[in-house]
Amino acid sequence: MHYHVYIATERKEAILDPQGKATHHALDSLGMSQVADVRIGKFIRLAVDADSKENAQSIAEESSRKLLANPIMETFRIVEILEATPKGASH
Amino acid sequence: MHYHVYIATERKEAILDPQGKATHHALDSLGMSQVADVRIGKFIRLAVDADSKENAQSIAEESSRKLLANPIMETFRIVEILEATPKGASH
Repeated sequence: MHYHVYIATERKEAILDPQGKATHHALDSLGMSQVADVRIGKFIRLAVDADSKENAQSIAEESSRKLLANPIMETFRIVEILEATPKGASH
Repeated sequence: MHYHVYIATERKEAILDPQGKATHHALDSLGMSQVADVRIGKFIRLAVDADSKENAQSIAEESSRKLLANPIMETFRIVEILEATPKGASH
Protein backbone atom coordinates (compact mmCIF):
# COMPACT_ATOMS: atom_id res chain seq x y z
CA MET A 1 0.00 0.00 0.00
CA HIS A 2 1.05 3.53 -0.65
CA TYR A 3 0.70 6.20 1.96
CA HIS A 4 1.36 9.90 2.08
CA VAL A 5 2.66 10.82 5.50
CA TYR A 6 2.75 14.53 6.34
CA ILE A 7 5.36 15.61 8.89
CA ALA A 8 5.67 19.10 10.38
CA THR A 9 8.94 20.29 11.88
CA GLU A 10 9.01 23.40 14.07
CA ARG A 11 11.85 25.22 15.76
CA LYS A 12 11.78 25.06 19.53
CA GLU A 13 10.40 28.23 21.13
CA ALA A 14 13.80 29.25 22.50
CA ILE A 15 15.40 29.18 19.04
CA LEU A 16 15.34 32.40 17.01
CA ASP A 17 13.53 32.27 13.68
CA PRO A 18 14.83 35.04 11.38
CA GLN A 19 12.71 33.90 8.43
CA GLY A 20 9.59 34.09 10.58
CA LYS A 21 10.58 37.52 11.87
CA ALA A 22 11.11 38.86 8.35
CA THR A 23 7.75 37.45 7.30
CA HIS A 24 6.04 39.00 10.30
CA HIS A 25 7.53 42.37 9.39
CA ALA A 26 6.35 42.02 5.79
CA LEU A 27 2.80 41.14 6.92
CA ASP A 28 2.84 44.19 9.16
CA SER A 29 3.85 46.36 6.21
CA LEU A 30 0.89 44.94 4.28
CA GLY A 31 -1.45 46.09 7.05
CA MET A 32 -1.99 42.68 8.64
CA SER A 33 -1.43 44.02 12.15
CA GLN A 34 -3.59 41.28 13.76
CA VAL A 35 -0.71 38.87 13.17
CA ALA A 36 1.39 39.04 16.34
CA ASP A 37 4.07 36.50 15.49
CA VAL A 38 5.22 34.17 12.72
CA ARG A 39 7.26 30.96 12.99
CA ILE A 40 8.27 28.98 9.92
CA GLY A 41 9.07 25.29 9.86
CA LYS A 42 9.01 22.55 7.27
CA PHE A 43 6.07 20.57 5.99
CA ILE A 44 7.33 17.28 4.58
CA ARG A 45 5.33 14.77 2.60
CA LEU A 46 6.78 11.27 2.46
CA ALA A 47 5.41 8.77 -0.04
CA VAL A 48 5.82 5.49 1.83
CA ASP A 49 5.36 1.86 0.78
CA ALA A 50 4.05 0.02 3.84
CA ASP A 51 1.58 -2.75 4.64
CA SER A 52 -0.35 -0.70 7.18
CA LYS A 53 -0.92 2.84 8.36
CA GLU A 54 0.92 2.09 11.63
CA ASN A 55 3.90 0.80 9.68
CA ALA A 56 3.91 3.91 7.47
CA GLN A 57 3.85 6.06 10.61
CA SER A 58 6.81 4.25 12.17
CA ILE A 59 8.82 4.59 8.92
CA ALA A 60 8.07 8.32 8.93
CA GLU A 61 9.09 8.64 12.59
CA GLU A 62 12.34 6.79 11.94
CA SER A 63 13.05 9.06 8.94
CA SER A 64 12.37 12.14 11.07
CA ARG A 65 14.68 10.98 13.86
CA LYS A 66 17.44 9.90 11.48
CA LEU A 67 17.42 12.85 9.10
CA LEU A 68 14.47 15.19 8.72
CA ALA A 69 14.40 16.95 12.09
CA ASN A 70 17.35 18.34 13.99
CA PRO A 71 16.67 17.26 17.61
CA ILE A 72 18.77 20.11 19.03
CA MET A 73 16.70 22.87 17.45
CA GLU A 74 13.49 21.30 16.23
CA THR A 75 10.50 19.23 17.19
CA PHE A 76 8.54 17.13 14.70
CA ARG A 77 5.11 15.61 14.62
CA ILE A 78 3.13 13.47 12.19
CA VAL A 79 0.22 15.62 11.06
CA GLU A 80 -1.68 13.35 8.72
CA ILE A 81 -1.47 9.93 7.04
CA LEU A 82 -3.45 9.38 3.85
CA GLU A 83 -3.73 6.39 1.53
CA ALA A 84 -2.25 7.43 -1.79
CA THR A 85 -2.99 6.28 -5.28
CA PRO A 86 0.22 4.92 -6.81
CA LYS A 87 1.52 6.72 -9.89
CA GLY A 88 0.09 5.38 -13.13
CA ALA A 89 -3.07 3.98 -11.51
CA SER A 90 -6.36 4.70 -13.23
CA HIS A 91 -8.53 7.39 -11.67
CA MET B 1 -8.42 36.11 21.90
CA HIS B 2 -5.15 34.67 20.73
CA TYR B 3 -5.00 31.87 18.21
CA HIS B 4 -2.25 29.85 16.66
CA VAL B 5 -3.10 29.15 13.05
CA TYR B 6 -1.00 26.51 11.30
CA ILE B 7 -0.68 26.85 7.53
CA ALA B 8 0.97 24.33 5.21
CA THR B 9 2.26 25.33 1.80
CA GLU B 10 3.14 22.68 -0.77
CA ARG B 11 4.59 22.93 -4.25
CA LYS B 12 2.21 21.92 -7.01
CA GLU B 13 2.89 18.39 -8.29
CA ALA B 14 4.20 19.67 -11.65
CA ILE B 15 6.86 21.82 -9.96
CA LEU B 16 10.25 20.22 -9.33
CA ASP B 17 11.38 20.02 -5.71
CA PRO B 18 15.19 19.72 -5.56
CA GLN B 19 15.27 19.88 -1.74
CA GLY B 20 12.83 16.97 -1.56
CA LYS B 21 14.84 15.01 -4.13
CA ALA B 22 18.08 15.50 -2.17
CA THR B 23 16.33 14.43 1.03
CA HIS B 24 14.89 11.35 -0.68
CA HIS B 25 18.39 10.42 -1.86
CA ALA B 26 19.77 10.86 1.66
CA LEU B 27 17.03 8.68 3.19
CA ASP B 28 17.82 6.03 0.58
CA SER B 29 21.50 6.13 1.58
CA LEU B 30 20.40 5.58 5.19
CA GLY B 31 18.58 2.41 4.16
CA MET B 32 15.05 3.85 4.27
CA SER B 33 14.13 2.33 0.92
CA GLN B 34 10.40 2.20 1.77
CA VAL B 35 10.27 5.96 1.21
CA ALA B 36 9.39 6.38 -2.47
CA ASP B 37 9.26 10.17 -2.69
CA VAL B 38 9.79 13.30 -0.61
CA ARG B 39 8.28 16.77 -1.11
CA ILE B 40 9.13 19.66 1.17
CA GLY B 41 6.97 22.69 1.80
CA LYS B 42 6.58 25.23 4.58
CA PHE B 43 4.75 24.87 7.87
CA ILE B 44 3.85 28.32 9.11
CA ARG B 45 2.45 29.20 12.53
CA LEU B 46 0.73 32.57 12.78
CA ALA B 47 -0.09 34.01 16.19
CA VAL B 48 -3.28 35.93 15.48
CA ASP B 49 -5.38 38.32 17.59
CA ALA B 50 -8.99 37.76 16.59
CA ASP B 51 -12.40 37.66 18.25
CA SER B 52 -13.30 34.23 16.88
CA LYS B 53 -11.79 31.15 15.30
CA GLU B 54 -13.46 31.98 11.97
CA ASN B 55 -11.97 35.45 12.06
CA ALA B 56 -8.51 34.02 12.82
CA GLN B 57 -8.91 31.66 9.88
CA SER B 58 -9.83 34.45 7.47
CA ILE B 59 -6.85 36.54 8.62
CA ALA B 60 -4.59 33.53 7.99
CA GLU B 61 -6.11 32.98 4.55
CA GLU B 62 -5.65 36.63 3.65
CA SER B 63 -2.01 36.48 4.83
CA SER B 64 -1.43 33.36 2.74
CA ARG B 65 -2.91 34.91 -0.38
CA LYS B 66 -1.11 38.22 0.06
CA LEU B 67 2.33 36.93 1.03
CA LEU B 68 2.95 33.46 2.39
CA ALA B 69 2.11 31.27 -0.62
CA ASN B 70 3.19 31.83 -4.20
CA PRO B 71 0.02 31.03 -6.19
CA ILE B 72 2.00 30.18 -9.33
CA MET B 73 3.98 27.38 -7.72
CA GLU B 74 2.29 26.54 -4.45
CA THR B 75 -0.96 25.59 -2.81
CA PHE B 76 -1.74 26.35 0.81
CA ARG B 77 -4.16 25.03 3.39
CA ILE B 78 -5.03 25.77 6.98
CA VAL B 79 -4.09 22.66 8.93
CA GLU B 80 -5.07 23.55 12.47
CA ILE B 81 -6.35 26.45 14.59
CA LEU B 82 -5.66 26.38 18.33
CA GLU B 83 -6.46 28.82 21.09
CA ALA B 84 -3.16 30.13 22.41
CA THR B 85 -2.18 31.39 25.81
CA PRO B 86 -0.85 34.94 25.44
CA LYS B 87 2.76 35.49 26.46
CA GLY B 88 3.18 36.37 30.10
CA ALA B 89 0.00 34.63 31.21
CA SER B 90 0.25 32.47 34.28
CA HIS B 91 0.36 28.70 33.72
